[in-house]
Amino acid sequence: MRRRSVRKVHPPGTAPGTLAFAVEPAAPARITLLTYGEGGLSERSVASTAEVPFPTPAGQQTWLRIVGHSPEALGGLSARFGVHPLVVEDIVDLGQRPKVEEFDDHLFIVVDVVRGRPDGSMEEEQVSFLLFENLLITVQERESDLFRLVEERLRAGRGKMRGLAVDYLAYALVDAAVDHFFPTLERVGERIDEIEEELLANPDRRNFERLHEAKRDLLRLRKATWPLREAVAKLERIDGSLVREGTRVWLRDVYDHAVQIIDIVETSRETTSELVDLYLSSVSNRMNEIMKVLTIIATIFIPLTFIVGVYGMNFSAEAGPLSMPELRWRWGYPAVWAVMAGISVGMLWMFRRRRWL
Amino acid sequence: MRRRSVRKVHPPGTAPGTLAFAVEPAAPARITLLTYGEGGLSERSVASTAEVPFPTPAGQQTWLRIVGHSPEALGGLSARFGVHPLVVEDIVDLGQRPKVEEFDDHLFIVVDVVRGRPDGSMEEEQVSFLLFENLLITVQERESDLFRLVEERLRAGRGKMRGLAVDYLAYALVDAAVDHFFPTLERVGERIDEIEEELLANPDRRNFERLHEAKRDLLRLRKATWPLREAVAKLERIDGSLVREGTRVWLRDVYDHAVQIIDIVETSRETTSELVDLYLSSVSNRMNEIMKVLTIIATIFIPLTFIVGVYGMNFSAEAGPLSMPELRWRWGYPAVWAVMAGISVGMLWMFRRRRWL
Amino acid sequence: MRRRSVRKVHPPGTAPGTLAFAVEPAAPARITLLTYGEGGLSERSVASTAEVPFPTPAGQQTWLRIVGHSPEALGGLSARFGVHPLVVEDIVDLGQRPKVEEFDDHLFIVVDVVRGRPDGSMEEEQVSFLLFENLLITVQERESDLFRLVEERLRAGRGKMRGLAVDYLAYALVDAAVDHFFPTLERVGERIDEIEEELLANPDRRNFERLHEAKRDLLRLRKATWPLREAVAKLERIDGSLVREGTRVWLRDVYDHAVQIIDIVETSRETTSELVDLYLSSVSNRMNEIMKVLTIIATIFIPLTFIVGVYGMNFSAEAGPLSMPELRWRWGYPAVWAVMAGISVGMLWMFRRRRWL
Amino acid sequence: MRRRSVRKVHPPGTAPGTLAFAVEPAAPARITLLTYGEGGLSERSVASTAEVPFPTPAGQQTWLRIVGHSPEALGGLSARFGVHPLVVEDIVDLGQRPKVEEFDDHLFIVVDVVRGRPDGSMEEEQVSFLLFENLLITVQERESDLFRLVEERLRAGRGKMRGLAVDYLAYALVDAAVDHFFPTLERVGERIDEIEEELLANPDRRNFERLHEAKRDLLRLRKATWPLREAVAKLERIDGSLVREGTRVWLRDVYDHAVQIIDIVETSRETTSELVDLYLSSVSNRMNEIMKVLTIIATIFIPLTFIVGVYGMNFSAEAGPLSMPELRWRWGYPAVWAVMAGISVGMLWMFRRRRWL
Amino acid sequence: MRRRSVRKVHPPGTAPGTLAFAVEPAAPARITLLTYGEGGLSERSVASTAEVPFPTPAGQQTWLRIVGHSPEALGGLSARFGVHPLVVEDIVDLGQRPKVEEFDDHLFIVVDVVRGRPDGSMEEEQVSFLLFENLLITVQERESDLFRLVEERLRAGRGKMRGLAVDYLAYALVDAAVDHFFPTLERVGERIDEIEEELLANPDRRNFERLHEAKRDLLRLRKATWPLREAVAKLERIDGSLVREGTRVWLRDVYDHAVQIIDIVETSRETTSELVDLYLSSVSNRMNEIMKVLTIIATIFIPLTFIVGVYGMNFSAEAGPLSMPELRWRWGYPAVWAVMAGISVGMLWMFRRRRWL
Repeated sequence: MRRRSVRKVHPPGTAPGTLAFAVEPAAPARITLLTYGEGGLSERSVASTAEVPFPTPAGQQTWLRIVGHSPEALGGLSARFGVHPLVVEDIVDLGQRPKVEEFDDHLFIVVDVVRGRPDGSMEEEQVSFLLFENLLITVQERESDLFRLVEERLRAGRGKMRGLAVDYLAYALVDAAVDHFFPTLERVGERIDEIEEELLANPDRRNFERLHEAKRDLLRLRKATWPLREAVAKLERIDGSLVREGTRVWLRDVYDHAVQIIDIVETSRETTSELVDLYLSSVSNRMNEIMKVLTIIATIFIPLTFIVGVYGMNFSAEAGPLSMPELRWRWGYPAVWAVMAGISVGMLWMFRRRRWL
Repeated sequence: MRRRSVRKVHPPGTAPGTLAFAVEPAAPARITLLTYGEGGLSERSVASTAEVPFPTPAGQQTWLRIVGHSPEALGGLSARFGVHPLVVEDIVDLGQRPKVEEFDDHLFIVVDVVRGRPDGSMEEEQVSFLLFENLLITVQERESDLFRLVEERLRAGRGKMRGLAVDYLAYALVDAAVDHFFPTLERVGERIDEIEEELLANPDRRNFERLHEAKRDLLRLRKATWPLREAVAKLERIDGSLVREGTRVWLRDVYDHAVQIIDIVETSRETTSELVDLYLSSVSNRMNEIMKVLTIIATIFIPLTFIVGVYGMNFSAEAGPLSMPELRWRWGYPAVWAVMAGISVGMLWMFRRRRWL
Repeated sequence: MRRRSVRKVHPPGTAPGTLAFAVEPAAPARITLLTYGEGGLSERSVASTAEVPFPTPAGQQTWLRIVGHSPEALGGLSARFGVHPLVVEDIVDLGQRPKVEEFDDHLFIVVDVVRGRPDGSMEEEQVSFLLFENLLITVQERESDLFRLVEERLRAGRGKMRGLAVDYLAYALVDAAVDHFFPTLERVGERIDEIEEELLANPDRRNFERLHEAKRDLLRLRKATWPLREAVAKLERIDGSLVREGTRVWLRDVYDHAVQIIDIVETSRETTSELVDLYLSSVSNRMNEIMKVLTIIATIFIPLTFIVGVYGMNFSAEAGPLSMPELRWRWGYPAVWAVMAGISVGMLWMFRRRRWL
Repeated sequence: MRRRSVRKVHPPGTAPGTLAFAVEPAAPARITLLTYGEGGLSERSVASTAEVPFPTPAGQQTWLRIVGHSPEALGGLSARFGVHPLVVEDIVDLGQRPKVEEFDDHLFIVVDVVRGRPDGSMEEEQVSFLLFENLLITVQERESDLFRLVEERLRAGRGKMRGLAVDYLAYALVDAAVDHFFPTLERVGERIDEIEEELLANPDRRNFERLHEAKRDLLRLRKATWPLREAVAKLERIDGSLVREGTRVWLRDVYDHAVQIIDIVETSRETTSELVDLYLSSVSNRMNEIMKVLTIIATIFIPLTFIVGVYGMNFSAEAGPLSMPELRWRWGYPAVWAVMAGISVGMLWMFRRRRWL
Repeated sequence: MRRRSVRKVHPPGTAPGTLAFAVEPAAPARITLLTYGEGGLSERSVASTAEVPFPTPAGQQTWLRIVGHSPEALGGLSARFGVHPLVVEDIVDLGQRPKVEEFDDHLFIVVDVVRGRPDGSMEEEQVSFLLFENLLITVQERESDLFRLVEERLRAGRGKMRGLAVDYLAYALVDAAVDHFFPTLERVGERIDEIEEELLANPDRRNFERLHEAKRDLLRLRKATWPLREAVAKLERIDGSLVREGTRVWLRDVYDHAVQIIDIVETSRETTSELVDLYLSSVSNRMNEIMKVLTIIATIFIPLTFIVGVYGMNFSAEAGPLSMPELRWRWGYPAVWAVMAGISVGMLWMFRRRRWL
């Protein structure tokens, strides 16, 4: 996974609230307005946020959904809903830490979902929530299936979602966002298990590089999930009427999931550390094996080669009786073989005694 | 030990409270109803939770025991006892972190026991408790001997168990669950001691793999025990009438045990880390030994082999008096041996001086 | 990067408040006085702080900007504005930890900005702020472009800066100082990415030294940013009228940036640690490769060389029939080649079976 | 040191308060009753706790000392003094974490002293204190010299011990127990210093194993001392009349000692970690030395041996003038020696230039 | 640096308050009494503490300075000034952790200064302060220049020291003691920088041993400075009249210095850890270089030596035409050289392709 660039910032010192749109939007943002209540649900596409009634009429819940960052769509947030310019800047600036901020009449929630793609790489998706009394505004950076199931539940009118206020809808969306970490973690966990099995069977370089990738992915997930936990914990403790008492127990469940995610991430990280140890020990073990073979063959043959070298010397028999008389003995040649066989056996015996074989 | 799959979840975004039964239950759940008091104990099997009187009559204690997760048995918890759908979801979803949650008229406790099996692998068992005023509901994921001894004490009427309310029974069961960690830790500790002894005697690859397994088991135990401690600490501090004052002192003892378990786990983890160091140092030490032998034999014989090579050259005596006159000297051959012996002794002396021998 | 000397201190025991000017100022300090308000902005150069009206007249904001540490410029701070001698000492003493201190009628803020220079080295710049009711004094250690953009905004009268009090100006300057970490971090991150790619392709010594430098830079940045976060957090929580309620929300944004910076620093540090592991494993891997080639060639040829040595011995055919009869066999020479070919093939087969090839 | 078995527990689920006597006591416990006050001291042996007057008469202090765990001696604690069954279980169960527990009319203190034995191994000794208004009960697991000096001071009537209540006696005993760690730490520290010196002089395997033992001992001491600190801190903060105001300042001193012990343990642990690094680097350094010698000798002689091999070939002079004419040159043999000398000198020069020599 | 012995303690169980004089004082302690105020300063030597007026007369400040631990000088502290026997024990017992303790009418402060000596070793010096209303007692373990400059300032009457109470004098002395860490740290930092440069140029064993020494020194400094910070923090927060409001701001400055010292120590420790990595990687890198040379030379010459060995065999031409006919070919000898040259070039090409050259 390539790092997302640190911040697509203006030069240090630029006026705060200046909007830096990360990618020139190819198409204008898609803005949808869903109004629902016990009675039913109506949905329509709007061209700009100026068409949204605000304050929203009591007794009915409104979900304003913005997909894509276009200046037209986001520029109106400040003007129409009184959102602080810094909040708009945070919505536009990708790569935010997950956080919850309280304002007088609304909450601002940012969540950053990290998901594995089928090709093994990972992608981030930042979602911002603005929770007003009867209005929920969500801003997604691009089209995705992140909220597909929640949308369907709302449209189908299944469960109690339509009968509750937008804080429950916000909970359901945050819960869906958090739950998207689980399949990714499951996949990373499977990958680590695979690597472990292969490492035990055959520790090669490629496994180590895969392990390194898994560690990078976990580091990425960790960076995303620790502040997520903080944010959800803060959300659960928010005072005031924006989060109703009944929703709090559901948020506690989201918090449990966030803690569980961190547990899995941390345990996986420890496991990868142990696998690095395992890999290194395997490699050094294999090197030992190779060294042992070299040592044994070399130490056996080096003296033997010396001996045959001795009798390859050309000292002249004419020089006198001290000049290599062995070469002229009847049993000389067999005796040399016997000596060499004795040396080999002796060395093998020594190696076995030292448990090198 | 194979990882328990991260979560057997529905796709992210499914309505919360949707029950996902982990394993299709082969048989229906076993539901037993025990009613006891100073006077005696009666026990009967019930077909569904609808048969359980609720609120339970004062002056008598009821233990509703559900073994196995079947939709029939658990579906009724919400309807009959007013348990929150999320709690039922947590009961069904295996792999929960141990935790304690307070509700208006009951406590919800989840404990996850990790036990070693005779074949050396480890198994998890999740137990959930719902503690009402005079009613304790326990849900176990499968038949096991986890609570056998507590059951027998209750049936036999030994000790004070029958004379106290269900919060004492809940304590006794949680205590039994926590105590099941001790024999497992004892066994892991013995395994580590064995590995240490073998490592010191003969550091081979297999010991290292066993050490790796012990580390994985400890990681597993650690993941289970840290939240367990938190949960027990929270249980000890619960206000309200569900946990009676007299029970609190017993819970403090459970807390002490949980802390002791963590102590043992952490100390064992440190010990295994040191053993990894010991193993690696042993391996590198052994490699050194082997290298030393190779070096000594090679460095002694390489020059000797060169010398005998020299006198194996075929420079022709006819070329003149400068052409290998040594070969024609009377003492040439003995002199070569003398030189070679001198070189060998010199080298051995040098090695000994450098303390390589 | 060379360490900045620990402290340019007087000997231990010198009277506190004694000013130690780090570098003899080549030129006198530049002192500028900016007065602004809704109405407009006037700017003039002053020779000494004695020319600044104090207390500043209400209804107008004053920014006194001192660039360079000269005794004339700083000596007056105590006398004219009642600044504590220790504060003046802290302003003069370079290498302060970022911090915020409250006094009766002013706040003292020190920030230490670490920036990468184009040549890859890093430089520090200490900036001190003294925030009074309608007066902001900033002291910079030398001329730099740190505040260029904020200055321009103020001069151009863009945005709301002129309409707000000096606490907003202080915020804007601190924000600019903090934001100067981002481009540096971006560059360090790119460097680490580059190193990673090269390490995977070709792990050589030079990459490791570059990695070592990156680690040192990160250590430097870490030392600067942790106390920065504390300082900003304290600033956000300051009670009293010096920091207006409306400025607090902007400071929260600065705090978010500080936390984000620490996140990046810590993640980068973990990444570099993993790269060290990767490097070491690559090196040991490459060594293994080399060893393997040596072992294979040596173990194949050592026995062959022995064999040809055997038939190079000069045992005399005249000594009898046992004396190297092979040399006189018709098929002797081809048979030796056949034996040697057999040994080579056998060894290659053994190596392949052990997966060394 | 062998691990003390994790817990000599009854099977999980046994009734709490069931006593498990660790070792069958060979002899019955020794029970001594000391009564003292300003007036004097009387001491007598009692057969069972039933003989002890309780509540103890005011104006006189009583120390009931039980050495050895026999059912007779400990069984009576609950019945006679109203001690909670769990406390009695904790007294009997060896391997408790040091702790302090408050009850209505008494405090329960457990301390676990780890001492080095002359043979270098370590032993643990658990001491329990029950502190009532005018009565102190101590239970030791076996006869030892732990409290010998305090006893003598009390018997001799030196100092102010007789004039103060039993809480001062309890302090004096806890202080003595804590102080017993110092000589052990001193000895471990000396051992580490010795190992360091030997490692620097001659890093061999045995030193590493001694280091490993020292690390295990420190791990053992650490496990004993961290909870000890907590326990003493709690003791110092206990409210109520059992610990008198004047005793608190003495307990603060015990706390200081406990912190000092932890400091020493942690510093020693860090030192041992550094020594492991030192050892490993020494070993790899020595390996390098050996490798260097092998490389130099081998790389010098391998080409020379090749050259002499060349002139050992038997190409027949009869085959023609191209067939090894060198062998028939007048200066051929000296020329070969000259070439070989040149190669050797060249290589030595290259090695020196690369700083391998 | 040799460890200071853990504690020069009496056997465990000795009465608290028993004084153990670390070193038999060669000379009696030097006791000086300085009395000062706005008006002037008088100084005289006293023989024992009994000569000091106590309580000190209001309106004048007294500094009682004791240098050296002699029973005569310290024995009187308890009797004359009501100092707790444990405090006197702490003063005498060297090796105390820095700490601050509050008593009814005085504060007790211990500081442990670690300074580098010119010969590179380190020395400790313990200083104790007893701060009464108008009286400051300092006890130093031996003569030293620790407070020379403060003394001179006081004698010379420079600055405001004479006009303020003894709490300001205590601040000035503690500040001087803390500032003595800076030159030592500066020197350790320079040493580490030197080691780093040498390591990069030429990683040899001696550098590693110097690094190991630097780490030990840092460990020593760390052990001294963390509790120092705690102690100063506590001093700053002390309530009551002993520390005047105006002195608190000066103490905050001391606290800042203590934090800065810890920052430097911790950063230096991290740097040394990275240098260990750098050293180990350098060593393994250099080993690789050596191995590569060996491998290349060996792998090139081993096959060549085999070939020349082949033609050194003595198969008899008389045995038949299959018996080494090459030896009798006209171009046999040049052909062998051509084959060998081809093999060498081929291998060099292979090595280059694998980037081993």
